[in-house]
Amino acid sequence: MPKQELVVLNTCCTPISEAALDPAQAADGAAVFKALADPIRLRLMSIIASAGQEVCVCDITPNFDVSGPTISHHLKVLREAGLVDCERRGTWVYYWPLPERLTWLSTLLSVPTPAAV
Amino acid sequence: MPKQELVVLNTCCTPISEAALDPAQAADGAAVFKALADPIRLRLMSIIASAGQEVCVCDITPNFDVSGPTISHHLKVLREAGLVDCERRGTWVYYWPLPERLTWLSTLLSVPTPAAV
Repeated sequence: MPKQELVVLNTCCTPISEAALDPAQAADGAAVFKALADPIRLRLMSIIASAGQEVCVCDITPNFDVSGPTISHHLKVLREAGLVDCERRGTWVYYWPLPERLTWLSTLLSVPTPAAV
Repeated sequence: MPKQELVVLNTCCTPISEAALDPAQAADGAAVFKALADPIRLRLMSIIASAGQEVCVCDITPNFDVSGPTISHHLKVLREAGLVDCERRGTWVYYWPLPERLTWLSTLLSVPTPAAV
């Protein structure tokens, strides 16, 4: 099965607190937020992002009360959003985070710290 | 019409790159990301967040090709997610961002900067 193309982001790194997004930038950003807008996917993302090493799908699935195929579907959505990548080795698939995309979202939502009074 | 209650967040400010979310924290976070997971709402949020002052809904609507009631619906979703607040004055409603919620999301997605090699 060919890898799905990642969402192409025209947006760079200007926070929304500094400049309004144009419609194309908003569509790109909303697509990535949609990947995180599900409790299972956000928790999957946090497990993969916090692991400090690649995570075997075999160690992820037991944390959830849903089926393996459901977890695989959600992982695919995270991968297509450019938030994680993976590699199959033997029986299992291993996942790791793509920190550039997290950093991009974090910067997009950042607010300047108010100057000390 | 009574104000809708804001989403209550049990989550504090630990980035997902440092600790996995529990199911309740993931549900809270996903609900806020869902509010940003729509191109119109993300663009609305960026217009309000970048304005530097309160924004009249009368100045927001002309930026979009959708009806006033549709814009009002999307603004209500942003308000219920705790991302903006508003006040009616005379004919118009004025919106401003709630930076604490943006900062919380930004921190949640932040990734430590790698140490210089």
